[in-house]
Amino acid sequence: MTDEELIKKTLKLAERGRGKVSPNPLVGAVVTKNNEIIAEGFHREFGGVHAEVAALDSAREDVSGGTLYVNLEPCSHTGKQPPCVDRIKKSGIKRVVIGTFDPNPLVNGKGFSFLRRGLEVRAGVLEAACQNLNEGFFKHVTTGRPLVTVKIAQTLDGKIARADGSSKWITSEKSRRLVHRMRSQNDAVLVGIGTVLKDSPRLNVRLVRGQDPKRIVLDSTLKIPLNSNFLTKPLVEKTIIATTSEASKEKIRSIKELGADVWTIKKDSKSRVDLSELCKKMGSEGITSVLVEGGSQIFSAFLQENLADKIAIFIAPKIFGEGLSAVHFNGIHSLHASIKLHEFDKRKVGDDVLLTGRVN
Amino acid sequence: MTDEELIKKTLKLAERGRGKVSPNPLVGAVVTKNNEIIAEGFHREFGGVHAEVAALDSAREDVSGGTLYVNLEPCSHTGKQPPCVDRIKKSGIKRVVIGTFDPNPLVNGKGFSFLRRGLEVRAGVLEAACQNLNEGFFKHVTTGRPLVTVKIAQTLDGKIARADGSSKWITSEKSRRLVHRMRSQNDAVLVGIGTVLKDSPRLNVRLVRGQDPKRIVLDSTLKIPLNSNFLTKPLVEKTIIATTSEASKEKIRSIKELGADVWTIKKDSKSRVDLSELCKKMGSEGITSVLVEGGSQIFSAFLQENLADKIAIFIAPKIFGEGLSAVHFNGIHSLHASIKLHEFDKRKVGDDVLLTGRVN
Repeated sequence: MTDEELIKKTLKLAERGRGKVSPNPLVGAVVTKNNEIIAEGFHREFGGVHAEVAALDSAREDVSGGTLYVNLEPCSHTGKQPPCVDRIKKSGIKRVVIGTFDPNPLVNGKGFSFLRRGLEVRAGVLEAACQNLNEGFFKHVTTGRPLVTVKIAQTLDGKIARADGSSKWITSEKSRRLVHRMRSQNDAVLVGIGTVLKDSPRLNVRLVRGQDPKRIVLDSTLKIPLNSNFLTKPLVEKTIIATTSEASKEKIRSIKELGADVWTIKKDSKSRVDLSELCKKMGSEGITSVLVEGGSQIFSAFLQENLADKIAIFIAPKIFGEGLSAVHFNGIHSLHASIKLHEFDKRKVGDDVLLTGRVN
Repeated sequence: MTDEELIKKTLKLAERGRGKVSPNPLVGAVVTKNNEIIAEGFHREFGGVHAEVAALDSAREDVSGGTLYVNLEPCSHTGKQPPCVDRIKKSGIKRVVIGTFDPNPLVNGKGFSFLRRGLEVRAGVLEAACQNLNEGFFKHVTTGRPLVTVKIAQTLDGKIARADGSSKWITSEKSRRLVHRMRSQNDAVLVGIGTVLKDSPRLNVRLVRGQDPKRIVLDSTLKIPLNSNFLTKPLVEKTIIATTSEASKEKIRSIKELGADVWTIKKDSKSRVDLSELCKKMGSEGITSVLVEGGSQIFSAFLQENLADKIAIFIAPKIFGEGLSAVHFNGIHSLHASIKLHEFDKRKVGDDVLLTGRVN
């Protein structure tokens, strides 16, 4: 087995912690000896045993002389767990192969340097894939904000609803299933109060297996009815209403009593929730990734205010010719600008095409 | 070599007549004997020798006992050339393999039946590919109208120009090169007078090798200036202005004197060129395929009036947020309808993605 194959295996193991370890990174570890895997482990839950230690603990035989594979640089500091590098050194492991450095300033390169004093260390194997697996963590740990993905389901002519307002369903079931997968891979999903009032979506994970994300509703003046499904069980447990000082204190209290969280965020120039402040708040609450699900005003605002990292546009093979556009800039911020995507790519999803890219 | 491989070869040969044989079909022919190719031919120019005869004429040895491969059913009637089936029978060919039947009612199945009396005949090899190669011919011969492909270059949000009107260049050079290839594969390209006045495009084939198409300008009231590049050499030779009775007779005369053709077409309810009538006229003039290149009004009209067969949308990795939409239906014809595409597919072209489909 090559180093690359074994790092790929750590990525698979790491993925099993998805939805349970955030805001910590997904980490998997494998130990080999005489070209055989003798131990595996992964980071199972926030605050729990790190992947390296889980692997070493599970070894079927003495690991001394073996090689440890891990997708992220082992930690060298004491957090909720003691530093992994100490344990690795003590175990008798001879060689360590690392996917990518940990961007956390408390670790970044320190774990690597520590291990190098005494062990053979190789770093940077399948680095892009390793960074990709933890892209939310990377963004969060370096900026304090979540990775923001704007998800749009539109027609070929960029419409997300017909002229009569109807929007169910523009895209095919296969696309909708992929959206549920995307939800399970994000710490939170976000919608505007308009979408809540119009479609009353559940925003949870039903069509695939996976963890439900937190759901954040942008509701500057707290229009949400107290009998909204967002405020009833079981949805209320993961509901956060983001509002402003425009909201009535009494309604805030009522909502909190129902079990949802309410965040009062600074207003922007239009007396709406300031999205940049909201991103900071999400980050400080341990949300490393958020899927922005709608509607038009929210899409436009995230793009216009340069707060989106990624975009995922499902395009259905339809033309409406009129209706509600997915994005509309009112010209204040960017009359002549256009938003450019990088790493632009396409894939077929059922009857639709999914176009993805990075913003800026 | 299998029958499929040899029919593929006939398709390649046939393609070499592209731009020269219309409104006749592209045809290639191959003769094998003892599993070796001993002759090849293709239809080189309108009215010229048919592919089968060209191949038989070029045989290096006696073809008797051999197999003839041809992508389209050999003709059984006398047109500009004598019937191919007679010549095939006389040649001593023992077996004939046909890609697809000729939809021309004068031939359809008759060539096949004639050959079957005496020869071994197999028909329907790579049928879809054979029909695809000649799709313009198929549409034209069965309906009297050209195959209409609507080609749009837009942003992710469906814009073909910025708010300030600028549109050069939304898509990448590689996409523009593919558009030139598409032009060379169509008998004509079509634009509205608005596009001519604004962009003064040449609409010829420059970025790749290939035949220039005819260029048709929709100009209901004959606004085109006499010094337009469409009316000067060398472009004038392939220019057709489609107008209505609203046009001044004198200007029609002046334009004709410059060397362009002018078609006076029935008006529609908005006093514009009636597109259905225009399609009939194109067909009767031997145009089997037309690429609709712009702008927004023309795209919308062809789609709304159900006159488009195919659509090709180049999507650039950009979002304008405002500007000119590629299509806009004014609601008269299809307030609640949406146009659905079939055989929807995607491919990467340079920085862009090309989405294609069939309309209806």
